Amino acid sequence: MDTWNLARGYRYAGVHCGIRPDPNRLDLALVVSERPAVAAGAFTQNRVCAAPVRVCRERLPSAEARGIVICSGNANACTGEQGLRDARRMAECAALAVGCRPEQMLVCSTGVIGRSLPMELIEPGIADAAMNLGNDVAALERAAHAILTTDTRIKISTRVPVLNGAEISLTGFAKGAAMIGPNMATMLAFVLTDAAVAPDDLARLAPCAAEHSFNSISVEGHESTNDSLIFLANGAGPKLAGASLRQFEEAVMAVCAKLARAIVADAEGASHLIVIEVEGLRSDAEARRVAKAVAESALVKTAIFGADPNWGRIVSAAGYAGVDFEETDLSLWLGDFLLYDRGAPTPFDASRVSAWLKDHRGIPMRLRFTLGPGRCTFYTCDLTYEYVRLNADYTT
Amino acid sequence: MDTWNLARGYRYAGVHCGIRPDPNRLDLALVVSERPAVAAGAFTQNRVCAAPVRVCRERLPSAEARGIVICSGNANACTGEQGLRDARRMAECAALAVGCRPEQMLVCSTGVIGRSLPMELIEPGIADAAMNLGNDVAALERAAHAILTTDTRIKISTRVPVLNGAEISLTGFAKGAAMIGPNMATMLAFVLTDAAVAPDDLARLAPCAAEHSFNSISVEGHESTNDSLIFLANGAGPKLAGASLRQFEEAVMAVCAKLARAIVADAEGASHLIVIEVEGLRSDAEARRVAKAVAESALVKTAIFGADPNWGRIVSAAGYAGVDFEETDLSLWLGDFLLYDRGAPTPFDASRVSAWLKDHRGIPMRLRFTLGPGRCTFYTCDLTYEYVRLNADYTT
Repeated sequence: MDTWNLARGYRYAGVHCGIRPDPNRLDLALVVSERPAVAAGAFTQNRVCAAPVRVCRERLPSAEARGIVICSGNANACTGEQGLRDARRMAECAALAVGCRPEQMLVCSTGVIGRSLPMELIEPGIADAAMNLGNDVAALERAAHAILTTDTRIKISTRVPVLNGAEISLTGFAKGAAMIGPNMATMLAFVLTDAAVAPDDLARLAPCAAEHSFNSISVEGHESTNDSLIFLANGAGPKLAGASLRQFEEAVMAVCAKLARAIVADAEGASHLIVIEVEGLRSDAEARRVAKAVAESALVKTAIFGADPNWGRIVSAAGYAGVDFEETDLSLWLGDFLLYDRGAPTPFDASRVSAWLKDHRGIPMRLRFTLGPGRCTFYTCDLTYEYVRLNADYTT
Repeated sequence: MDTWNLARGYRYAGVHCGIRPDPNRLDLALVVSERPAVAAGAFTQNRVCAAPVRVCRERLPSAEARGIVICSGNANACTGEQGLRDARRMAECAALAVGCRPEQMLVCSTGVIGRSLPMELIEPGIADAAMNLGNDVAALERAAHAILTTDTRIKISTRVPVLNGAEISLTGFAKGAAMIGPNMATMLAFVLTDAAVAPDDLARLAPCAAEHSFNSISVEGHESTNDSLIFLANGAGPKLAGASLRQFEEAVMAVCAKLARAIVADAEGASHLIVIEVEGLRSDAEARRVAKAVAESALVKTAIFGADPNWGRIVSAAGYAGVDFEETDLSLWLGDFLLYDRGAPTPFDASRVSAWLKDHRGIPMRLRFTLGPGRCTFYTCDLTYEYVRLNADYTT
């Protein structure tokens, strides 16, 4: 990745302000657009949502956002009125430091919930970050580090699509709802572009991009209090409409999908990554319901961990998804192995499939129905001893 | 339990016919009512349902059922047209052996799915069972043994309510959706009574009793292909209507609830049994959605395994249940410990709560809302290394 790949007109910082005890662990990130940017977002649907999510929801969509301030190690969730004041204060400090109005600054937090933010550390940390902004890959990587919680690595995706001859760039970075959730680890993702996009177009794109990426992954089916996806489009590049807007939307989808896959791939404790392709239902929504039921079945996830080609668990998970079908409408593959063919198990060689499962980390699982054009791709991972250990042993 | 406790006019048998290799393992059960009985049932909602479920659905409700034949070790699910023929043939053989029409006989199976029944073993097994019917506790226990799969013990519940001075008896027995599901272990339950109940009343009671018992337990949230609850009421005792019918319904609910709790208590690999009480929502259905979301959260279940009083996971699982509430509407107790009080964590002593979790197997968890009279009790268990081991190592 080279700096020329990055979206133009953005600067980044990641610093250690002290939320985390380890001085080598970055815990505060700042992203600044050099000019006012169009901004939109998609957030957790959880009724229990963190203070920064409430503040962002008030401020988005916007036509004049200037940046995002993010802290990790403390989610600022379940912290009542003080939490709201602290979230607003974080935005205000960042606005003061970069020279804009507080409402132009967005705010995110991730980490332990139920504890008040240490504002005495965060306020000087924000000033420190503002003094250390950079527009290169190293600065972006520091920001990407500063938002991590239990992730084992940073997650960055960039793309330079050429739209009607004009280059525009996208820079995305994210952190995962890793398998261990310290009082609910959060999914955070930020996608920045130098394209000029109308606020309505970006606001329409945000939930759609989330649906096909971050909402199509499941580590444990537990939606966090803080999940946030924020888009900034600062118009340093060409204005988009019509065909070029659609190309741009596809590029955004690709960046989001790559970040989502990186989150599942980093799920701690997982030994297999399962890519569930469901096709042939009446609608994409139906396909999604089936994929989600399979992805969240503990019996399916333990079977894959045990290298057991247990088609019965997969087929019956599809069966309780609340989607109308007959068994004869369904066929199932694990990798290239057809295990279940239009309502009946095939005479497959279980030991061969089991050996294949043991040898492969990425497991394609395909459920084909014969009822329509609806389809969905969903990502999940297996359920292992390590998952139980990490989640049972975590202490608040 | 004495024989006089049992519902009058029923006979039971449990034999080994050879579906299971171990000659000491009973695998075929027969229940016969001495006179035609009113019968009703509630079955899996899974779109992929086993052949015996289809046959029972065709035959119920009925005013003249004579019995139920049940085999374990093979679920007769995903077996196509042959499976339907085999299920009908099981009923036919049982009818021939006890002297009734085939349509008067109901049929259930539980065990591995996707394999055809060994009818050459089952047919003589049914004749053997018919010759060994008994009306005492020992015969009932043999039948209760013969339906088990991964359960570690039989599950029987009896009750003798006195309704307007007349004694009627209930005999219930069940097998569990234990934690290990060999290609989907099944929940089967049978409730027999000597009361005289109108077919419409019994058909109305069946789904309602299921809702408050077997549908309010979750071991892993995976609904089987074979789940069946069947009621027989043979009218050897007094006819029920009005107030006595309502008393009878309460007694049926109590028998079902006891069997359901016995299923969770026997969940293999579990170290804690969690009783979730949700109250104060707008309707029982809302309370149920919240209870189910909490019961099925892997993060909640691993936290309880780890003796971690992680209120954040519980509160946020409630938050994504799809029920409208504000955080300030919710308070949460684990046992007698108030962890979360109307939207904010309390300053509880985590080490004390953790010690209490380590010392107790039964864990009451109470979520109190302030929005209405809706309530629900839901039973689940924790997620342990043993669960992963049992489910990953199971081989077809």
